[in-house]
Amino acid sequence: MPDLTLTHGDVEAAAGRVLGRVRPVAVSPLDPSAPGEPSRIWLALEYMQHTGSFKARGAVNFLRAHQEGGTLPEAGVTIASGGNAGLAMAWAARAMGVRATVFLPASAPGVKVARLKGYEASVRLVEGEYADAAEACAQYAGRTGALPGHAYDDPFVAAGAGTLLEELRTRIPGLDTVVVAVGGGGLFAGVATAAHHHGIRTVAVEPENSRALNAALLAGGPVDVTVDSIAADALGARRASGTAVEVALRTGSRSVLVPDSAIAAARQTLWDQRRIVTELSGATALAALPLAGTGGGGYEPGPGEKVAVVLCGANTDPSDLIAGAGPGAV
Amino acid sequence: MPDLTLTHGDVEAAAGRVLGRVRPVAVSPLDPSAPGEPSRIWLALEYMQHTGSFKARGAVNFLRAHQEGGTLPEAGVTIASGGNAGLAMAWAARAMGVRATVFLPASAPGVKVARLKGYEASVRLVEGEYADAAEACAQYAGRTGALPGHAYDDPFVAAGAGTLLEELRTRIPGLDTVVVAVGGGGLFAGVATAAHHHGIRTVAVEPENSRALNAALLAGGPVDVTVDSIAADALGARRASGTAVEVALRTGSRSVLVPDSAIAAARQTLWDQRRIVTELSGATALAALPLAGTGGGGYEPGPGEKVAVVLCGANTDPSDLIAGAGPGAV
Repeated sequence: MPDLTLTHGDVEAAAGRVLGRVRPVAVSPLDPSAPGEPSRIWLALEYMQHTGSFKARGAVNFLRAHQEGGTLPEAGVTIASGGNAGLAMAWAARAMGVRATVFLPASAPGVKVARLKGYEASVRLVEGEYADAAEACAQYAGRTGALPGHAYDDPFVAAGAGTLLEELRTRIPGLDTVVVAVGGGGLFAGVATAAHHHGIRTVAVEPENSRALNAALLAGGPVDVTVDSIAADALGARRASGTAVEVALRTGSRSVLVPDSAIAAARQTLWDQRRIVTELSGATALAALPLAGTGGGGYEPGPGEKVAVVLCGANTDPSDLIAGAGPGAV
Repeated sequence: MPDLTLTHGDVEAAAGRVLGRVRPVAVSPLDPSAPGEPSRIWLALEYMQHTGSFKARGAVNFLRAHQEGGTLPEAGVTIASGGNAGLAMAWAARAMGVRATVFLPASAPGVKVARLKGYEASVRLVEGEYADAAEACAQYAGRTGALPGHAYDDPFVAAGAGTLLEELRTRIPGLDTVVVAVGGGGLFAGVATAAHHHGIRTVAVEPENSRALNAALLAGGPVDVTVDSIAADALGARRASGTAVEVALRTGSRSVLVPDSAIAAARQTLWDQRRIVTELSGATALAALPLAGTGGGGYEPGPGEKVAVVLCGANTDPSDLIAGAGPGAV
């Protein structure tokens, strides 16, 4: 069995590698409950990151770590992803002058192909489903020696994502809790590892019908789940990474499930009240907070608890959002 | 002649009045020119403010100052605006339990009426143009004693907007320069007054074909200009306020004009590179910076100069924006 343990040292090393290469996160406090009251909840605006999601952190750390270790081959990196992970890997590779070969099903939307080519990735279209693209990617890696990248189940990718927590604790002195959305668990594993080191609690939020981590915690280890959520394009992992499960158990992180309706409402509320656009996965962490009008609320902060809610991505078509003027106070 | 002088004391008083009632501004640095280089330019994310623009600051200061002074009548406040000023006044009035009566031309889009009613304003539709709505508003004020509000030409409104600068200098130690868009000059007058007090330069950015302040500075006082810009809905003042002109002359602020094409490109670049949505006026200040691909660049910061660029509003339909993946580094 491989060593699944992710350490704070891994995150510290990642922080050194990503420094100056990823954008430092900006934070914005939610409105206090009354004028003069202190703010207790901060939005972490990580969707402003390069390529529109936190994945840029993991991709930079992955490539730089392999470069430092002498394990970055001439053939570059390869990954099967038309989503946030593929975009981030293509972007990071270009920034470092590394070749990136990205495999997609031939049925993938043209906009995804165009985005990847915008980052100068070599795009290979494969007949069939994503599983077929992943298989072709693995064959390509075996044939050429290209380094295979993974969207979340990689210690460098997870540690890179964890650098977000190091920034948040600097921005928000006395931070008690960080709330993150979970798909396969890369962001969660990195953030929870760093958070636990600093005595900060992590809340892991999943859609009710895309609960790979929640199911794994109940089963005592990774299990397959069915995926049926409006946020599945980014969060729809069938199985959580072993690392994420190990971290969740070791750190005693809290697992929270939210209905799709609360995710959609949180995304709309961010636009209506803040003019913030996120993708559905990017609003999923917020859906766990008890906010007016969202129907969410799986996590209720205690009195005086300082909470950071990570808005982790915004690769979305904003055309279904219109300017609102509701009474909320996000 | 009325005393047009706006002082730093006015802004300090406003800061006390808006504290806890408006959202503190968040800032996010632009990417450094190379890894390891320090950031020199910050985006001020003021579009996240209540009601989607900086106008909330002036509206709160205006109403609270009149409340403190005993000059807030039972009939409340009235204004002729379906834009950002009207929204902000309606919102601030509701928050303080004050009646707001907003006059609009009968031809105003239903969405503007709906937004104002969302803030519980009493909306009066008037046959004709905005001038007719303004006339009806003035008559209403005369008849009922309601306090007439102005979108920009009011010392409390301008001083309230200036509170933004006080926050920026706290967020960005050593700030040298602040860049703002100018319509009638309320934001500019408040910000430049506070900035000058702290030894900070202000750059006033206007569309080439909506240059009320620029023309006034050339003429030595406010003059009428023709207005023909894609950002005219928020910046299209025919005449700058006397206060704004006085402040610009006294503080030696820099006036910069930008073409509509640079404004549109700056707005698109903010979405492509940052997933930030602003209205066209909200991207106008950024259009003055020499950024790749925007065709802007009326203001070139010097070596080491620390610059804050105010993104001042986001009351826009985002449906013309799609996720891009360009090479820029905003």
